[in-house]
Amino acid sequence: MKILAIDTSTSLASIAISTDRQIVAESLISTNRTLSARIIPEIERLLASASLTLQDIDIFVSSIGPGSFTGVRGGVATMQGLALACGKPCAGYSSLTALAMNFSFSTPLVCPLLDARKSEVYAALYDCSTPFPSPRINDCVLPPAVLLDQITAQTGNPVIFVGDGAVCYHDLITERLGDRALFAPFSFNSPRSANGILLAQHSANRGALLEPRELLPIYLRASDAEMLKQKTFSVPD
Amino acid sequence: MKILAIDTSTSLASIAISTDRQIVAESLISTNRTLSARIIPEIERLLASASLTLQDIDIFVSSIGPGSFTGVRGGVATMQGLALACGKPCAGYSSLTALAMNFSFSTPLVCPLLDARKSEVYAALYDCSTPFPSPRINDCVLPPAVLLDQITAQTGNPVIFVGDGAVCYHDLITERLGDRALFAPFSFNSPRSANGILLAQHSANRGALLEPRELLPIYLRASDAEMLKQKTFSVPD
Repeated sequence: MKILAIDTSTSLASIAISTDRQIVAESLISTNRTLSARIIPEIERLLASASLTLQDIDIFVSSIGPGSFTGVRGGVATMQGLALACGKPCAGYSSLTALAMNFSFSTPLVCPLLDARKSEVYAALYDCSTPFPSPRINDCVLPPAVLLDQITAQTGNPVIFVGDGAVCYHDLITERLGDRALFAPFSFNSPRSANGILLAQHSANRGALLEPRELLPIYLRASDAEMLKQKTFSVPD
Repeated sequence: MKILAIDTSTSLASIAISTDRQIVAESLISTNRTLSARIIPEIERLLASASLTLQDIDIFVSSIGPGSFTGVRGGVATMQGLALACGKPCAGYSSLTALAMNFSFSTPLVCPLLDARKSEVYAALYDCSTPFPSPRINDCVLPPAVLLDQITAQTGNPVIFVGDGAVCYHDLITERLGDRALFAPFSFNSPRSANGILLAQHSANRGALLEPRELLPIYLRASDAEMLKQKTFSVPD
């Protein structure tokens, strides 16, 4: 089985290809404001490097968020288009789950954190002691201080913080959790689409693949445009 | 600080670039028999994707093995050449250490395994509970059954097996260790040069960088050519 997966939820886009349970090509590239121009050429280049074509791919996989609205939308649309054209199914996965999976078999709970701007983080808390993480706090968007209260209520043990949100809020996390806060080495701070491939394979084994039209983003909060529209058109009490 | 690192010890070459403790580009490509033709264009492409040039790089880093003789030799020579031309220092790291670091903060010991052909593996055993692994069995080359004896003598606890050698010898490992053997999800089975960047940064912090001529491969065993030479010219007893 051959799987193509992408994650465009952060400014570092990740693309990976597997053949028969082996990663054969993987790429992490900075895509600030250039995602739409770069994602298709990058997919073509990776396929060529693995001596594959789009027609060889059995499942088209994308992160469905949370993360950058434009990034996630672009990633999902790209995979929907490719899957539809090739007549193949899709699978979606949470960028936070993929990020937490950088700490597979971990004894401490893992808290993936992506900076959501507006003084908030996209966050979750996972038990990663088995290959597929189990959520202790589901994917959410909230101020980091509120998240740290929830984590403190859940556990008195060490927690691994990973992702760009862990870098942004390093001092606050240390202040609140002291030496119970473990910070990921910086090579682990991005969601890897190679982990998305593992999740897609798991979905395939359970017969839980999607039609292209069923692959939809999960944003967790309204977009700036929607919030502005609501503000502009709402009637004051 | 900007760091360029490569790992060419297996048939999946890994290249990564960091800027100020952040990975800005990373690539994993299959290089069966095409390494020398592909490594420089791939480095140029990654540098361009991160809007950097060779002159921006402060440290040139390569895996020094163990692994493919030709691969390691090619990777080391490439980094020596670039560092010499740019007047910058080098750092080297073990491919097995980088592979073990895929399980940072792990409570079980980690056994990185690369298939060394001739019914042997390149192997080590690391305590990865801290960000920089401590060896329990140093990098070595040996038959997998002998390694498993050594591991059993060291610990009665679970051990994580990672790398293409863990895939090759899955059945033997399971037979000997039963459910104490944990196998890495397949997205973790390659040494990542991004982990080599962490090790190089650690070397830089300790003032332990190398002159280009000091960056040398560690092969662990003689090459086929050397073994053949010894066999051909040795005088029988």
